[in-house]
Amino acid sequence: MTPDAPLIDRSLFGPGPTNTYPEADAALVRPLLGHLDPVFIQLMDETCEMLRTLWGTTNARTLPLSATGSGGMEAAFVNTVHRGDVVVVAINGLFGQRMAELASRLGARVVPVESEWGRPLDPDDVLRAHPSPAIICAVHAETSTGVRNDVAALGAGKGDALLLTDHVTSIGGMPLAVDDWGIDVAYAGTQKCLSVAPGLAPFTINDRAFERRVERPTSWYFDLGLLGGYVGGDAGGKRTYHHTAPTAMVVSLHAALTRILSEGLDAVTARHEAAGAALQEGLQEMGLELFAAEGYRLPQLTTVRVPDGVDSAKVRAYLLQTFSIEIGAGIGEFADSVWRIGLMGHNAQPRSVALVLGALKQAIAATR
Amino acid sequence: MTPDAPLIDRSLFGPGPTNTYPEADAALVRPLLGHLDPVFIQLMDETCEMLRTLWGTTNARTLPLSATGSGGMEAAFVNTVHRGDVVVVAINGLFGQRMAELASRLGARVVPVESEWGRPLDPDDVLRAHPSPAIICAVHAETSTGVRNDVAALGAGKGDALLLTDHVTSIGGMPLAVDDWGIDVAYAGTQKCLSVAPGLAPFTINDRAFERRVERPTSWYFDLGLLGGYVGGDAGGKRTYHHTAPTAMVVSLHAALTRILSEGLDAVTARHEAAGAALQEGLQEMGLELFAAEGYRLPQLTTVRVPDGVDSAKVRAYLLQTFSIEIGAGIGEFADSVWRIGLMGHNAQPRSVALVLGALKQAIAATR
Repeated sequence: MTPDAPLIDRSLFGPGPTNTYPEADAALVRPLLGHLDPVFIQLMDETCEMLRTLWGTTNARTLPLSATGSGGMEAAFVNTVHRGDVVVVAINGLFGQRMAELASRLGARVVPVESEWGRPLDPDDVLRAHPSPAIICAVHAETSTGVRNDVAALGAGKGDALLLTDHVTSIGGMPLAVDDWGIDVAYAGTQKCLSVAPGLAPFTINDRAFERRVERPTSWYFDLGLLGGYVGGDAGGKRTYHHTAPTAMVVSLHAALTRILSEGLDAVTARHEAAGAALQEGLQEMGLELFAAEGYRLPQLTTVRVPDGVDSAKVRAYLLQTFSIEIGAGIGEFADSVWRIGLMGHNAQPRSVALVLGALKQAIAATR
Repeated sequence: MTPDAPLIDRSLFGPGPTNTYPEADAALVRPLLGHLDPVFIQLMDETCEMLRTLWGTTNARTLPLSATGSGGMEAAFVNTVHRGDVVVVAINGLFGQRMAELASRLGARVVPVESEWGRPLDPDDVLRAHPSPAIICAVHAETSTGVRNDVAALGAGKGDALLLTDHVTSIGGMPLAVDDWGIDVAYAGTQKCLSVAPGLAPFTINDRAFERRVERPTSWYFDLGLLGGYVGGDAGGKRTYHHTAPTAMVVSLHAALTRILSEGLDAVTARHEAAGAALQEGLQEMGLELFAAEGYRLPQLTTVRVPDGVDSAKVRAYLLQTFSIEIGAGIGEFADSVWRIGLMGHNAQPRSVALVLGALKQAIAATR
């Protein structure tokens, strides 16, 4: 046990979690509220309303689920996949693979549509994969590769299918328009561009998807039919006890969303865009090669190839020990050949760009 | 939005959440750590080790799940219930009912063994309910009624069955001995006697139950086969990425457990015992009648009948408005006729007893 150990202060420039907004920290330790307290219920309502703004939706059923982003993925699938459903999954990274795994566990007939890691999905390929799928799934911002996928094109061509999308790394960091893009079910996480500690999954589902839902899913914890009353969306606003809301985390999310909307969603998106562009330019000026395809690079999460003759793990260890900076390794076959550098939320600012570029240059030189 | 609203400071004397330990608050806002940071991994390991002490187990697979206590319940069932299994569930309150619901959703043949709310389960009835159940389930401390159930007697007589038990309200507040009592699978929550914010589910499962588990459960998020690597229990201590751990919450739990073990587990249990006894004596001296059966009353959560002619809701509103004190209503048919008063964790101290007794007396008089 290390009760008196010095507190380690990291610059979290990996794929998440990122450093939190000071407002989110302050709210995390306001005196704890009960989950049925009228003050908390108001904060929860306001949180759901602010989430609607970030999602770009009017969906009544919009709330922070009491789990991490991966729990949000589980909630999306367990409520919508009926045994035997045809589920088309666009896969160009780890999180697309995971979607296919979840659908398969629930008895779906999964139709995977693969494209190369580092390249975006081809919407036409995905839409042509099956004549009448029940659900089409895609990841908006692939955390494993730093690639943006065009989910709006899927919404435009989905026909009668539901469109189910992952926004763990996109929400709050890039343009997002659930209603305009034809998205029916979507989930996210708090620990990336929202700059809140990990532990909640912002979630939204429209009436169309809710009406087709699994009536009594194998999951009780994520059963949206029960969760409606939890946030007052159903039953005429009457609250019904489902589970104890993680009140401290919700209040922290409330504070971060307030901060984001006070800065302005467009300004926040522009801040991510500027930081990402400056980082990507700086990396290329250092002679490094970006991994994600041009035109589809995420500003909030940059992937870059580890130069020949450089040991990825040594560089990451040097960054951690010398500068207390965390960056991410690649995933799967790119574990040793790609770095993932996130500038998300509170870290999407010029100071972070200067710091990570300077530190990385020194780390590469020192470990060669 | 209420960014500048005054912070409300409650005395949380309901059935949970309770007020947090100051140590847990301080840790909640230490600079955020990444979930793969070596410093965090050490804190996670220590957290699991301290949880073993609180559970009274040597189970390797002991960890805080990334969900609230209800998520812990889901993990317990989804990993152990095979379709068609006979599952005996002792029911004498809401959480026993919920266990039956979860088992049923997973295709179990549920054998409910009901006893009156406010009375303990009869271990002989439960053990005689079926000649060869796959699983026997019970709630150690029924949050809905304030009753202690004798789960050790079930462990002694379970035969080949697995014993699966709920400790959301018992862990850290009363004696608990998973290994000695023959418990195979158990879950809890952080927001009661551990005095941490809600959001994590301490969990433990022994080898016997793990070997009989569902190999590919419908839940990916709670799949213990995957979670082993997440905390290093399997795969020779090698970490595998599963989901992003809620690092702030885990570090807060670490601080609370350190505090509890530094005070001494026996001393903490005795503190709960003394506070509960003083509260129950004080309530009876006021002429109120306790609800839970004598000999089976939880010290950490007292249930008391609302006196004739007293309006339960008015009293609770008066307590909230006048004293910023939260107590709980009853559940189900006892919603208006029972109060639930918790003195858990940081609130299990003489100051809380004096406060709640004095405030309740005044609230009853003022609202009559």
